[in-house]
Amino acid sequence: MDVERLEEEAARILPAEVRDFVAGGADDEVSLAANVTAFRRRTLAPRVLTGASVPSAATMVLGCPLAAPVLVAPMGMQRLVHPDGEAATSAAAAANGLGFVLATGASVPIEEVGGPARLFQLYLLDDRGVSDDLVRRAVDAGYRAIVLTVDAPVIGNRPRDRRTRGGTAWRNANFEPYPGIDAEHHAYVSRIRADITWADVDHVVATAGVPVVVKGVLRPDDAVRAADHGAAGVVVSNHGGRQLGRAAVPIDVLESVVDAVGGRVAVLLDGGVRRPADVLTAVALGADAVLVGRLAMWALAAGGEAGVTEVLGDLVTGIHRTMTLLGARTLNDLTGVVTPTER
Amino acid sequence: MDVERLEEEAARILPAEVRDFVAGGADDEVSLAANVTAFRRRTLAPRVLTGASVPSAATMVLGCPLAAPVLVAPMGMQRLVHPDGEAATSAAAAANGLGFVLATGASVPIEEVGGPARLFQLYLLDDRGVSDDLVRRAVDAGYRAIVLTVDAPVIGNRPRDRRTRGGTAWRNANFEPYPGIDAEHHAYVSRIRADITWADVDHVVATAGVPVVVKGVLRPDDAVRAADHGAAGVVVSNHGGRQLGRAAVPIDVLESVVDAVGGRVAVLLDGGVRRPADVLTAVALGADAVLVGRLAMWALAAGGEAGVTEVLGDLVTGIHRTMTLLGARTLNDLTGVVTPTER
Amino acid sequence: MDVERLEEEAARILPAEVRDFVAGGADDEVSLAANVTAFRRRTLAPRVLTGASVPSAATMVLGCPLAAPVLVAPMGMQRLVHPDGEAATSAAAAANGLGFVLATGASVPIEEVGGPARLFQLYLLDDRGVSDDLVRRAVDAGYRAIVLTVDAPVIGNRPRDRRTRGGTAWRNANFEPYPGIDAEHHAYVSRIRADITWADVDHVVATAGVPVVVKGVLRPDDAVRAADHGAAGVVVSNHGGRQLGRAAVPIDVLESVVDAVGGRVAVLLDGGVRRPADVLTAVALGADAVLVGRLAMWALAAGGEAGVTEVLGDLVTGIHRTMTLLGARTLNDLTGVVTPTER
Amino acid sequence: MDVERLEEEAARILPAEVRDFVAGGADDEVSLAANVTAFRRRTLAPRVLTGASVPSAATMVLGCPLAAPVLVAPMGMQRLVHPDGEAATSAAAAANGLGFVLATGASVPIEEVGGPARLFQLYLLDDRGVSDDLVRRAVDAGYRAIVLTVDAPVIGNRPRDRRTRGGTAWRNANFEPYPGIDAEHHAYVSRIRADITWADVDHVVATAGVPVVVKGVLRPDDAVRAADHGAAGVVVSNHGGRQLGRAAVPIDVLESVVDAVGGRVAVLLDGGVRRPADVLTAVALGADAVLVGRLAMWALAAGGEAGVTEVLGDLVTGIHRTMTLLGARTLNDLTGVVTPTER
Repeated sequence: MDVERLEEEAARILPAEVRDFVAGGADDEVSLAANVTAFRRRTLAPRVLTGASVPSAATMVLGCPLAAPVLVAPMGMQRLVHPDGEAATSAAAAANGLGFVLATGASVPIEEVGGPARLFQLYLLDDRGVSDDLVRRAVDAGYRAIVLTVDAPVIGNRPRDRRTRGGTAWRNANFEPYPGIDAEHHAYVSRIRADITWADVDHVVATAGVPVVVKGVLRPDDAVRAADHGAAGVVVSNHGGRQLGRAAVPIDVLESVVDAVGGRVAVLLDGGVRRPADVLTAVALGADAVLVGRLAMWALAAGGEAGVTEVLGDLVTGIHRTMTLLGARTLNDLTGVVTPTER
Repeated sequence: MDVERLEEEAARILPAEVRDFVAGGADDEVSLAANVTAFRRRTLAPRVLTGASVPSAATMVLGCPLAAPVLVAPMGMQRLVHPDGEAATSAAAAANGLGFVLATGASVPIEEVGGPARLFQLYLLDDRGVSDDLVRRAVDAGYRAIVLTVDAPVIGNRPRDRRTRGGTAWRNANFEPYPGIDAEHHAYVSRIRADITWADVDHVVATAGVPVVVKGVLRPDDAVRAADHGAAGVVVSNHGGRQLGRAAVPIDVLESVVDAVGGRVAVLLDGGVRRPADVLTAVALGADAVLVGRLAMWALAAGGEAGVTEVLGDLVTGIHRTMTLLGARTLNDLTGVVTPTER
Repeated sequence: MDVERLEEEAARILPAEVRDFVAGGADDEVSLAANVTAFRRRTLAPRVLTGASVPSAATMVLGCPLAAPVLVAPMGMQRLVHPDGEAATSAAAAANGLGFVLATGASVPIEEVGGPARLFQLYLLDDRGVSDDLVRRAVDAGYRAIVLTVDAPVIGNRPRDRRTRGGTAWRNANFEPYPGIDAEHHAYVSRIRADITWADVDHVVATAGVPVVVKGVLRPDDAVRAADHGAAGVVVSNHGGRQLGRAAVPIDVLESVVDAVGGRVAVLLDGGVRRPADVLTAVALGADAVLVGRLAMWALAAGGEAGVTEVLGDLVTGIHRTMTLLGARTLNDLTGVVTPTER
Repeated sequence: MDVERLEEEAARILPAEVRDFVAGGADDEVSLAANVTAFRRRTLAPRVLTGASVPSAATMVLGCPLAAPVLVAPMGMQRLVHPDGEAATSAAAAANGLGFVLATGASVPIEEVGGPARLFQLYLLDDRGVSDDLVRRAVDAGYRAIVLTVDAPVIGNRPRDRRTRGGTAWRNANFEPYPGIDAEHHAYVSRIRADITWADVDHVVATAGVPVVVKGVLRPDDAVRAADHGAAGVVVSNHGGRQLGRAAVPIDVLESVVDAVGGRVAVLLDGGVRRPADVLTAVALGADAVLVGRLAMWALAAGGEAGVTEVLGDLVTGIHRTMTLLGARTLNDLTGVVTPTER
């Protein structure tokens, strides 16, 4: 299914404020749109006659074996769009051999989400004990890495949410054990720390006991700094265009980040990934894997676990088909297939 | 409030000829549109984990301490859109710690406009005594600088005004003391000198007794000349696209001007500034401050002093939020956050 | 009057086939549109405080003193749009001190068109005697130069004309003396030679007795060749986008032509010139003058001689106003005001 | 006739699923659109006064004398749009002195298609005997070359076809002799080999007995490899945008391929060619010939053999007219007429 049709379908089902909450971006939504169009400007020059009829997109990312270099991005409150929420999405990812990142603000608790390639996205709250305990619970529950989000010291200005008056109130599922945190969504968000620094990365790295990934990096120097502070990876991301309306576009800055870190850490990319060609373009330019967000959310809204399973399955099938068309037996064979960008 | 919605709101309220007078530009309005779109082409690459949770946008511009690097641009006849006119706008600027520039063609007299960070915009009239007296009155009334507009030796060709047959007749408030000047707007405009030269800058600099800023510069060589003639600053401006339909776009030429003057004079920018990211983009590229025009005018039309106060307050709030998202504690930390422009 | 409104006005008056004949271009009309948009991509950086309050756009082109560097382009059959035809247009040009180029295919005879700055546009017909006689008549009648059109060895493919089935039949006025030439428009066009070469330029240069201009050059090497063959000037032109749908755009190639000829011949430009800024952009990039075509034709349709006089008068007024805004006292002061093109 | 009108006309006649099958592209159809727009960005700078009144577009391509450097691209199942199918199209090509490439999946058998400049497009099937026999039959029937398609190891994802549920079922005409192959279209397509390699090129080159052209190359290195493996030519093609939605655009990569092969093999181009200027742009940039696809298919739908004859005739006429306008007597004179691309 095309992402456009899927979004239309989801839009028919969802209340306007939920749809807008998922679809919207920050400020004048320049980056929201540019995340997608930046991929459309990049073309691919296949290698022919390589015999890549049965390609493998398999890869190992942050210690997780994946059938394709794709994870579902952390998105909170998935039960807003379907009663099965994150449990359905993670099961669908697992069914396709893909990774899944559970959000701090999830609507299903850490312990009730399954799958072999789960990661846990962490916001640092003003109560360090709570943050530390979230990490402990995630590690105890078998999550393979902590994805520390660093691009949301404050929440971006999202005009669509202001227009719908933040009608997306919801109780977050991970805060029941902590009487000090009001689990109502807006209350919880107000507890996210705005003053995080690299010292906080040091703390998480030192205490997590699993690899730590820094999510929300758009600069080569910050990626190098993440490596210096012991991170196992970075996610080049502008938070889906939701934080800063004019944020740099991940696929536009990816190569500079890859060059800067020189293989010291894994480099993931998030933002604007909708189609098999997007995934492979990012990998060809040096990404170890990509995250898909809204695509999974629309599929969840439209069809629950079965819907996400089908859509992610289509994505994997498409990745294989596209690799065959590109003449790539493995992801390593993608080097050099992106033509120099014009326009 | 989004500037687009604000403009729609104001358009509902205002007579067509007033709305068009404010909104319109010169000739085929290429620069009018380009002033805005040029900002949308520039993206920002935040620095993460800097702990910039409580940023300060405070700055000192031309001797005026400002809470943020923003002044309200000189715009005449503000009582056309609201009975409180310039008095309301200046009060709203002051309430937010921002600067205000009163136009020669104001609809409220020099002496009746308050605020700690007022500047006076000067047109040189064909009666030098009147111009000199306007400067004297402004300085006596506590205005901190003279902003000498140099890009309007004649009025641009504005098709919208020709279509509405110049229905914006108004008596200017600053000319009551001068029997030799007809205060009717079009009559007064006809008295603006077309033959001004750098010698006139010398005269104003020599006689004003306060800093003089040259407004309407689009070339590095002219900015250097302004410094050589004793100006304290320049405003890189195409007069909001109202003078020359194909004028160079301020944000596109800003860096060349900043490089040329090398810190000898303050560099302000005016044109297309609508959003917090615009303000910080200009500052990151070397501007000491920016001027906002139509944004304030639409707010004045829609809500009087309270409206302007709210809109400028939102702008300052947004500047702080955007600084936190960019990882900038102070304006100095913005260096290097603008990514190289493509498309 | 804006050219867009003028065209709308003319479109209301004219039969569809006449309107389309004037407005249309060749093939997919890429160059027709690009001629106009290429000007819109170029911005101008004024010089301020130069005291250019009373500028002069006066110039001498091909021995003709002009009030501004503008001539009316050769366009045939002007009586199709107004009964006064070329006599009206030339009178309007003369009234404004501008040049006028009469087309071989005019609807008013050579001898009945007046004005001090007339040039005669020549097509070489398959009967050399007729072509020679046309030149002789033009020179006898006081025309100052011959403009030899070289970009129409065959007529371009104009889909609009094919759709309207060439309803623009008309008898040309200059062929009455020649029983061998059928003056019906399509018959006459079929007599234009397709096999012209530089030897034909030599012949016209040798026999005309007045300066010869080669019209329809888009390459530096051809411009140099024109100079080598004794031409007094070239017109950089793609025939208003009417000959080759993908022809190079005059303003885009102008500088390369100017550089190549190094002042040996006059360089005129034709195509897409609608507004004062277009005229001055071309001059700033090295053109000695420009030709305006459709602008004059729409004005003729809408208002006859008075209409053209007003529109050309507005153009000259606008040129003066724009020069003042650019700080240019004379056309020589325009050097360097065009900013480097982006996008 | 304009291709746009022709397509509209065909769309009125054809069932939606057939129209979409012909018109559609892969994925988000970025390359489908870019194939056409990439030509529109390239402009041509004519040479004037060369006397090219009677140009010749004649050329020899792969041993076939052609009146113009144009062949009809291989497109299967042409009887879907008109009962005369490939027999009509090939006859129309022959009538105009152009080449014709018969598809493996044709709806008229190899032996029933006539014309002096026929080539046979080959897909390698999983039964080598069948492929070898197809080649033998083509050579026996007088086809001059084998065009081996290498960019379709699997069929691209074509959303339009998925939407119309592949309603284009059809029996292919070339498989009657082979009981092992189900001639139903989708069944046959499933027999196309996905694992072809350069060794297969070697086999075809070694056994065909006529020149072999490798179709579907978008990289200079692959073109060189084709030459190394004995191919007589390559077709720079993205399969009309039908295989990979973001495939590189042929006209954008043509020059790099031409430079790389340095004349060792013929270089043909396919994709986006609609108009005379497209043909000559490709030739000017180094192509030996181009293939036209949909243009011929729409003409066949709209008017059968007469329709294709007229449309291809118009194309040849237009090529001659455009050559005259470009000052080119022969195709060799086109070198250097394409201006450097901007935008």
